[in-house]
Amino acid sequence: MIRSLYYSSGKPIRKDISPQEFPKLTRDRRGLLWVDFSEEPAENCLPILQSFGFHPLAIDDALQETHAPKLDDWRDYIYIVLNYMHLQGPDNEWEMEVDELDIFLGANFIITLHDHSISAIEDTWISCDRDPRTLQDGADHLLYKIADYLVAGYMPIVEKIDAAIDVIEDQVFDRPSPQTLEQLFTIKRVLLSMRRFILPQREVLNKLARDDYKVIDPKDRIFFRDIYDHLVRLHDLNESLRDLVSGALDTYLSVVNNRMNEVMKTLTIITTLFMPLAFVSGFFGMNFFEPLGLMQSWTSNIVFYAMLTVTILLPLTMFVWMRRRTWI
Amino acid sequence: MIRSLYYSSGKPIRKDISPQEFPKLTRDRRGLLWVDFSEEPAENCLPILQSFGFHPLAIDDALQETHAPKLDDWRDYIYIVLNYMHLQGPDNEWEMEVDELDIFLGANFIITLHDHSISAIEDTWISCDRDPRTLQDGADHLLYKIADYLVAGYMPIVEKIDAAIDVIEDQVFDRPSPQTLEQLFTIKRVLLSMRRFILPQREVLNKLARDDYKVIDPKDRIFFRDIYDHLVRLHDLNESLRDLVSGALDTYLSVVNNRMNEVMKTLTIITTLFMPLAFVSGFFGMNFFEPLGLMQSWTSNIVFYAMLTVTILLPLTMFVWMRRRTWI
Amino acid sequence: MIRSLYYSSGKPIRKDISPQEFPKLTRDRRGLLWVDFSEEPAENCLPILQSFGFHPLAIDDALQETHAPKLDDWRDYIYIVLNYMHLQGPDNEWEMEVDELDIFLGANFIITLHDHSISAIEDTWISCDRDPRTLQDGADHLLYKIADYLVAGYMPIVEKIDAAIDVIEDQVFDRPSPQTLEQLFTIKRVLLSMRRFILPQREVLNKLARDDYKVIDPKDRIFFRDIYDHLVRLHDLNESLRDLVSGALDTYLSVVNNRMNEVMKTLTIITTLFMPLAFVSGFFGMNFFEPLGLMQSWTSNIVFYAMLTVTILLPLTMFVWMRRRTWI
Amino acid sequence: MIRSLYYSSGKPIRKDISPQEFPKLTRDRRGLLWVDFSEEPAENCLPILQSFGFHPLAIDDALQETHAPKLDDWRDYIYIVLNYMHLQGPDNEWEMEVDELDIFLGANFIITLHDHSISAIEDTWISCDRDPRTLQDGADHLLYKIADYLVAGYMPIVEKIDAAIDVIEDQVFDRPSPQTLEQLFTIKRVLLSMRRFILPQREVLNKLARDDYKVIDPKDRIFFRDIYDHLVRLHDLNESLRDLVSGALDTYLSVVNNRMNEVMKTLTIITTLFMPLAFVSGFFGMNFFEPLGLMQSWTSNIVFYAMLTVTILLPLTMFVWMRRRTWI
Amino acid sequence: MIRSLYYSSGKPIRKDISPQEFPKLTRDRRGLLWVDFSEEPAENCLPILQSFGFHPLAIDDALQETHAPKLDDWRDYIYIVLNYMHLQGPDNEWEMEVDELDIFLGANFIITLHDHSISAIEDTWISCDRDPRTLQDGADHLLYKIADYLVAGYMPIVEKIDAAIDVIEDQVFDRPSPQTLEQLFTIKRVLLSMRRFILPQREVLNKLARDDYKVIDPKDRIFFRDIYDHLVRLHDLNESLRDLVSGALDTYLSVVNNRMNEVMKTLTIITTLFMPLAFVSGFFGMNFFEPLGLMQSWTSNIVFYAMLTVTILLPLTMFVWMRRRTWI
Repeated sequence: MIRSLYYSSGKPIRKDISPQEFPKLTRDRRGLLWVDFSEEPAENCLPILQSFGFHPLAIDDALQETHAPKLDDWRDYIYIVLNYMHLQGPDNEWEMEVDELDIFLGANFIITLHDHSISAIEDTWISCDRDPRTLQDGADHLLYKIADYLVAGYMPIVEKIDAAIDVIEDQVFDRPSPQTLEQLFTIKRVLLSMRRFILPQREVLNKLARDDYKVIDPKDRIFFRDIYDHLVRLHDLNESLRDLVSGALDTYLSVVNNRMNEVMKTLTIITTLFMPLAFVSGFFGMNFFEPLGLMQSWTSNIVFYAMLTVTILLPLTMFVWMRRRTWI
Repeated sequence: MIRSLYYSSGKPIRKDISPQEFPKLTRDRRGLLWVDFSEEPAENCLPILQSFGFHPLAIDDALQETHAPKLDDWRDYIYIVLNYMHLQGPDNEWEMEVDELDIFLGANFIITLHDHSISAIEDTWISCDRDPRTLQDGADHLLYKIADYLVAGYMPIVEKIDAAIDVIEDQVFDRPSPQTLEQLFTIKRVLLSMRRFILPQREVLNKLARDDYKVIDPKDRIFFRDIYDHLVRLHDLNESLRDLVSGALDTYLSVVNNRMNEVMKTLTIITTLFMPLAFVSGFFGMNFFEPLGLMQSWTSNIVFYAMLTVTILLPLTMFVWMRRRTWI
Repeated sequence: MIRSLYYSSGKPIRKDISPQEFPKLTRDRRGLLWVDFSEEPAENCLPILQSFGFHPLAIDDALQETHAPKLDDWRDYIYIVLNYMHLQGPDNEWEMEVDELDIFLGANFIITLHDHSISAIEDTWISCDRDPRTLQDGADHLLYKIADYLVAGYMPIVEKIDAAIDVIEDQVFDRPSPQTLEQLFTIKRVLLSMRRFILPQREVLNKLARDDYKVIDPKDRIFFRDIYDHLVRLHDLNESLRDLVSGALDTYLSVVNNRMNEVMKTLTIITTLFMPLAFVSGFFGMNFFEPLGLMQSWTSNIVFYAMLTVTILLPLTMFVWMRRRTWI
Repeated sequence: MIRSLYYSSGKPIRKDISPQEFPKLTRDRRGLLWVDFSEEPAENCLPILQSFGFHPLAIDDALQETHAPKLDDWRDYIYIVLNYMHLQGPDNEWEMEVDELDIFLGANFIITLHDHSISAIEDTWISCDRDPRTLQDGADHLLYKIADYLVAGYMPIVEKIDAAIDVIEDQVFDRPSPQTLEQLFTIKRVLLSMRRFILPQREVLNKLARDDYKVIDPKDRIFFRDIYDHLVRLHDLNESLRDLVSGALDTYLSVVNNRMNEVMKTLTIITTLFMPLAFVSGFFGMNFFEPLGLMQSWTSNIVFYAMLTVTILLPLTMFVWMRRRTWI
Repeated sequence: MIRSLYYSSGKPIRKDISPQEFPKLTRDRRGLLWVDFSEEPAENCLPILQSFGFHPLAIDDALQETHAPKLDDWRDYIYIVLNYMHLQGPDNEWEMEVDELDIFLGANFIITLHDHSISAIEDTWISCDRDPRTLQDGADHLLYKIADYLVAGYMPIVEKIDAAIDVIEDQVFDRPSPQTLEQLFTIKRVLLSMRRFILPQREVLNKLARDDYKVIDPKDRIFFRDIYDHLVRLHDLNESLRDLVSGALDTYLSVVNNRMNEVMKTLTIITTLFMPLAFVSGFFGMNFFEPLGLMQSWTSNIVFYAMLTVTILLPLTMFVWMRRRTWI
């Protein structure tokens, strides 16, 4: 879907202008044009982008997928790649999807390309449509709006993960299960891939806030600085969450190991207590000592009581010995 | 609670000035105004902050929570976020709370916002109240006072943790328990989150000590340098403590592992000693050798004494063999 | 094999020029000469390279093998080493081969040396042969073409590895086997050695995109920048894949460990349940209790039923006790 | 203890000058004054340090304990903190103590403060006392002497640790014991804390060797450079030793693990060999087969010899099977 | 042994000049003097080095042992420390020895000091002796020669280690033994200490290739650059080998762990199969069921066949159950 929005101060907003008009409109320095390509096949986008006179390499980047966030300065316009993400979970299963938003920003136009409907774009579009004053501050301010919405959308995701880790941390000490482990590994992976696009996105915003671009009003840099600060905090939160996950993993392994040790100790204690007893009873079960046969004295009452004493005292002695070695 | 303090050299200190007067007072370059917002809802703070003419983004940052320590220079004033922390433990349980202190510092005013009562603010407030000379050195020196109190408050916390680690280190070698492990993991987490705000706080102080700000007298930089040095040392201490915790964790795991090995060895030795004996006694318990039945020669005295010899010598031989393999 | 291609604007392409002509041709600033040495022994290359007047050290580097990617600037020409790679697998076994491509780039000539046929060279050669306009943009653009083909060739390899990891990740949770482990270690090694030449290659492209070289038209730098971006992304992908492999390894070890724990628990439970029972039955198998002998009362029916009760209740009690300790 | 030394070229050395004279003496640019505070309470030092006109913050730092090595430039003088260390062991137990040496260096005076007697100070003092020419080269050269002695004192400590690691490395392969582990952990901790003060000390010397200070003759920088080189080497040695300790720890764990495996294998083999035998003998011990009772044919000689064959062949077969699986 | 070589263009080479002549010869700017101290006690070297007018600190460094590679610029001469190494193995045991080569390089002299005969020095000496033209290019070129030989000597060592790792990698999967482990740890240590002197040596060569020294002709820098590239590659190779060793260690531990698991499973299966059987046969071995005594019905044929069925079916059932849990 291709849609467009044209604002010129004092005039009503024009919508869905034909692509042929775009170059003409951008020539009027006082207007502001926003073209949004949503889930549009590359072959439809190509001629329109070319009509803006963008460099072939920039167009190539915009039409191909899976670039990391970056910013290319082409003097009269800048080309920006941002990432956005959807996260499902943890009810059934964590599922994460990262997609890219390509933006061309000129002095008086902004062009956005994305493969899926993004709420950041939708919300900005609706607020522009409703209140044309939003467009008053120029294309760079519109970029700020979109980026602000985009970055604000990460916070609920981070909070969702935070809550999930809280639940898991309790499980780890109380009833560690392989499912706990699987969840931890999944969250770890989600956090890792989140980190992978937050970091370069932070760099893009840092450039917007610090560097000198022809299409960005120096006075607006402070706004990009604000988003940059949000991304710094998101990155910090991400690191904290990763630390928590690592800690939970370590705790899980230690708790499981501790339980294992307890189990092994029990095995050893049982074996150690009963093996000698089993031998003793086996010894007197041999046919040498048949009451009918020879060596009847071995089955006399005295021997029996002696044997009984051993049977009772031996495990007690071993128990005391093991306790002294602090096994039990 | 909103409270204020106004000092003008030669005049008595005025307290709890009405918010309407603030802008007028700050216009007098020789005075010094301190406004403190403590546990005050955002809607009450907003109009007052706006009356000072702060940038909307800075006000937003001040009224929202959970920012990392940072410093924003807005020419006529600087906006600073610092963190302070409370730690409870280790009597029952370690519990840590990190909160933020927002500061606006102008040439002749300082505004502090915080959600909980902070002893650093209280102590400075009382000393200003008692001795107006404290206010003589200007707003930047007041900031130094507050930051100094704040940072000094970390040391007892670090010492408490240090003492707790000492106790644990002894436990680890003597009687390692899952509780030891849990405590170590908790302390590790406390140190990690402590590190997370000491590092950016150090950066904030570094900026105050090195960079050129309109509202900070270059001669006062040396004081911020001093706090910076304290934070450097705190960070070093934090690292040392984390090393100690890591070492204690490693030791714990090794000690537990060693005990485990010892337990397993005992299991093996007992099994190895008694299994063959059990078989021997089981062998002669078979019904082939009934004294009444056939094969009586198998139950003759000679066989019995041979069997007895085996029963005594076998475990001895195995014991010697195992000792030679340095198992025991 | 030595082959050459000479393009001079307006004239037809000349092919397989005799080496003696090379120096003369390069003197004509408007022409473009490409000499390609493929699987050619060093002694044949040496005199030709010397005829171009290259520095002995550069020639040495070009004729010897196994250099890491690098770029040496010799004013009138630059010497570049790039790496390319073949990967076989995962049907039978992963096998990776890394080889080097040496390039001399002058103002109007390019010389390529390689030990195996490279598709990047072949494809460029064919496209030059077919369409002389490819050569119009000069030697530096030809270098871009070759490097672009080379780098584009990494993507299918990365995708192949990605798919293999996907397959393994499923195996890890369902049926972990030593073969899974072996495959993971192999992929890890492939990714590591891939990383080793992508990183310096990225640096080479970065230099081409940023630095000032006599033989590279500043306007063409943007093309090298594009390849550089591709390599940045490849490096990111490589890191992601390595994270996935590490995660899969951790998961594998945890899953195997969990299974092990389950097995050990079963062992302990069985031993703990049956050892006391075995002792009880052994006890009453001793010859003291022969119905013919003394102590007949020990083999009375009451004792038998008591014994039977113990035999049934003991394992049940232990089972309940173990369940309470959350072992089962 | 406060002691002092005053040298003026051509005159005999004056000792133990009264503190009131210090300011006057330092005004004579040709003299050299050394004041040493050893184990002196802070209240005695304070007035003397103030009489030199040092900044209150610098005096504070000097009188408080436990600062990391650092260098503060106050124009007319520099304030330096160095660390020295004592190490006891390994005969009974490793015990390490790190203490600080505070130094004020002016154009013609040096002031040293320390809480314990330091051999570096003592040796320099004695050599100054014995041979006044040592003092001829000025205060900065005296600083060099002290720092040189201090750093030279680390080497025997490092060598002692090196020797201890050598002894442990042999133990690790021959007879690993929990004591070995404990010693390794202790040495690791000693090396870690050693590293913690060598690194900033290196930085201090680096500053002295490179930066421009009013109180240090540029020609003398080469001497500080020499100490810096020693510290670089000490740091390298420290890293090597830490690598060795890490290696020894890994080896220890692997060796212990290997032994454990061997023990477990033996357990498994013994159990596997004797359990079936025990069952066979138990089977024929059942009362079904009483020679007096029914089923006498089960206790015939043929069955006995078959049973005997099984008893002998079964363990042999299992042994061969286990060997084929390379367990033994 | 002290030996010397003097070359003056147009004249025959003079050898073994008396030390008294050295200062005079170095004054002639057109000559070139090489003095080599091999295994010479410090007291013999000292006066000669002093006669060249070197700084006492530089002489100290040269006569003491065990410095890391470094380069000190003393204007009229530079002082360089390089390391060389011998490696024995892997036939019997890996043994590595690292030694240092001290070099003083002046405008027209070079002085080399070493404690053992080095092939790099010997080979350069012989080639100088045989062909005086080698000396024509000046002292800095002679330094290049020596350094080139030295660095070239590392490659066979690296290849030897590479081959040894190849052998071990095969062992790891086929027949892992504690010896494999020991070898891996040794190689790891060799690579670590190799890395420790390659890195600073690389830095020394980097300085020679980039910085401006009075005694090095800028035109000769390209040669040092070449050695620098070799060292870069050696460092890369070293890293690769260390990765391989780490990988092999991980594989070893995993393989051993897998075997361990297999062994434990077998133990568990055997115990689980035979323990219930042992109990059953023990149960019927009790004296309650004596054919002569009471409860003869318990030893009737029906019970026997029921018991026989249980004996056969029980292990089969458990086997199926364990297979379903994918243990076998």
